[in-house]
Amino acid sequence: MGTLPAESVLLSEAAGRTLAAALTAPGDLPGFARGTMDGFAVRARDTFGASETSPTYLELAGEVAMGVASDFSLAAGQCARIGTGGMLPVGADAVVMVEHTRSVSATTVEVSRPSAPGTHTMGPQDDAAAGELLLPVGQRLRPQDVGLLAALGVGRVDVVRKPRVGILSTGDEVVALEANPGPGQVRDVNRYTLAAQVRDAGGEPVPLGLVPDDEEAIRGAATDSLGRCDLTLLSGGSSVGVRDLTARVFLSFPGAELLVHGVAVAPGKPFLWVRTPYGHLLGLPGQVTSCMVTFHLFVEPVLERMLGRPARSFCRFYRRNARLTRNLPSVHGREEYARVQFVADGEGWLAEPLFGASGLLKTLRRADGLVRVPVNVEGFEAGAMVEVLVFP
Amino acid sequence: MGTLPAESVLLSEAAGRTLAAALTAPGDLPGFARGTMDGFAVRARDTFGASETSPTYLELAGEVAMGVASDFSLAAGQCARIGTGGMLPVGADAVVMVEHTRSVSATTVEVSRPSAPGTHTMGPQDDAAAGELLLPVGQRLRPQDVGLLAALGVGRVDVVRKPRVGILSTGDEVVALEANPGPGQVRDVNRYTLAAQVRDAGGEPVPLGLVPDDEEAIRGAATDSLGRCDLTLLSGGSSVGVRDLTARVFLSFPGAELLVHGVAVAPGKPFLWVRTPYGHLLGLPGQVTSCMVTFHLFVEPVLERMLGRPARSFCRFYRRNARLTRNLPSVHGREEYARVQFVADGEGWLAEPLFGASGLLKTLRRADGLVRVPVNVEGFEAGAMVEVLVFP
Repeated sequence: MGTLPAESVLLSEAAGRTLAAALTAPGDLPGFARGTMDGFAVRARDTFGASETSPTYLELAGEVAMGVASDFSLAAGQCARIGTGGMLPVGADAVVMVEHTRSVSATTVEVSRPSAPGTHTMGPQDDAAAGELLLPVGQRLRPQDVGLLAALGVGRVDVVRKPRVGILSTGDEVVALEANPGPGQVRDVNRYTLAAQVRDAGGEPVPLGLVPDDEEAIRGAATDSLGRCDLTLLSGGSSVGVRDLTARVFLSFPGAELLVHGVAVAPGKPFLWVRTPYGHLLGLPGQVTSCMVTFHLFVEPVLERMLGRPARSFCRFYRRNARLTRNLPSVHGREEYARVQFVADGEGWLAEPLFGASGLLKTLRRADGLVRVPVNVEGFEAGAMVEVLVFP
Repeated sequence: MGTLPAESVLLSEAAGRTLAAALTAPGDLPGFARGTMDGFAVRARDTFGASETSPTYLELAGEVAMGVASDFSLAAGQCARIGTGGMLPVGADAVVMVEHTRSVSATTVEVSRPSAPGTHTMGPQDDAAAGELLLPVGQRLRPQDVGLLAALGVGRVDVVRKPRVGILSTGDEVVALEANPGPGQVRDVNRYTLAAQVRDAGGEPVPLGLVPDDEEAIRGAATDSLGRCDLTLLSGGSSVGVRDLTARVFLSFPGAELLVHGVAVAPGKPFLWVRTPYGHLLGLPGQVTSCMVTFHLFVEPVLERMLGRPARSFCRFYRRNARLTRNLPSVHGREEYARVQFVADGEGWLAEPLFGASGLLKTLRRADGLVRVPVNVEGFEAGAMVEVLVFP
């Protein structure tokens, strides 16, 4: 799949969005030399040799007003009062901090420190030279990047359109949030967790509701989603029969190709990935933990690609090393993601494994992150240092 | 200042918001015993002693349909086919995975592994017992927390109202984004960086524009903001004269108290904090880096308090240890925040200091985080391990 098309948004709405084209500087920034301290603009060479015991005396040529070019220039032996951010007058190449000066008369300033050229100043191209690459395509805009765009006068910015993600749930035991579940029934949780995950990942969730465990119903809902969305997620149907049904329906679309049918990952085993000419159809496990882990492992990399970035799993998690408080067993031959809770331990951290079925919300609620046990490792022992993937 | 009042939002809009009241379980969750694997529901004691060489044979009493209570119960020696998430029939207390069984006839199932009671099942209270505290007040709702609310049927949730933050900029050299800056002029950057920072911190930015460096103008704008917002930020006016003017205006409100006037922090020195009976007025440095650092150091803790959490600086930054690539000098007697860029180094990370004036966007754009040099430390040497505060 390729990167989605661009759309233009107001700069005030651009934070968190993804740049659709690299940003190069249209001109020099700031474009003029500025002082970066309150003090006196000087010709640096006039201050060479100045000291507390042998100060230099300079003639005050004027005061730099903020936001305008001064109408005077500095001749040898002259200085000008300047505030932080003021434009250096012609002739000046350094600023002496006010702390290292003393006004001895209305026209004379004593300078007690030497300044090298460029001291406490910012050059015309110090932020950017015209044509310089400033932000690469695919950059997720942080506050400082938005600030840079503002400095350049970019009022609207081209960002990658948010991937629209259709969210479907199935399972005969699943009822809508509004329903009062009877014996054997549970409410549709994945619709809400997935929507929040999609939004955090930079996508736009399109909740499409509950679908009966039925071939025609699933085909109809998937067709609808393929027509409206860039990506379709169907969670549930974890039992073998329903999983096969889902695969059959997904593969019934003309040109559909099976990319993945089941993975050696726990939780997350029944993951299904079918590519059709109209879009990708992803079958996610119904158990809430499996569904969440599968999202970060397989779905978010797809969204990253749609946003023009490399496909990386757990791309928004940060990593923290911690020491296991107890054995973390794992089955050889499958990759496992164990939920853990942090406990502060002096300078470092302990990771307390939270055991429980992948259908439980309780362990997820208490968890701070996940520990990945690689496919060929039979777990970790208590006391081992592990890398925790910390929930974003 | 106290926590802001609550407002009710749809669950689908609740992710990232802050719980206004603790959540306790209104009932047991899931409320019935479920199987967590595809296989057969059994009475565990019927399987005791079963093995590959000496399997146990159970009578198939029926199949559990999803989403309903079974109309049969298990007598001794009986089992029932069950899918993941199915409700256990009366009498059953464990599930044997389908992999450890074999159907020997239409009515007989061979079981080759013993099961302890509770194996591959989830009890009626395993997710929550009625009355149990599930989420504390002040919890920022993550996807899994939203899922828990969905499981409980909470369609609307009381969250703390977003703090409204008035954003004002001053400085005679500052022009609006739309303007074409003349010599000595720069565009208003802080309005955009602060708005993005406020939003990321869970607040609602209220951009109030540019104010001339003038007592009456600043008083008028601050009055307007105090009337509409929960917190007022005025950036700029870093030069000594304007700073004093801002402080004078802020303190001219009846009942105003000066809490902070200048801090031994770089960048960030000219921070000003005045409390009035109508709200807090914060004066931030005009230099973009100083302004951003001051936000995380002083402003975000105020927003955290308004959201009902402890006031913590850099609360959304994570910490990563890295080795300095070069000396990081610092002035004794003030706390410094140095911008650094990460460079991968085998298993670990190097932190490359980015030097440059605090008015530069370039270093901020390239920076991955900040290294704090404590007030009584004169910098760190190349090769030292430091803790990097990583930009959220």
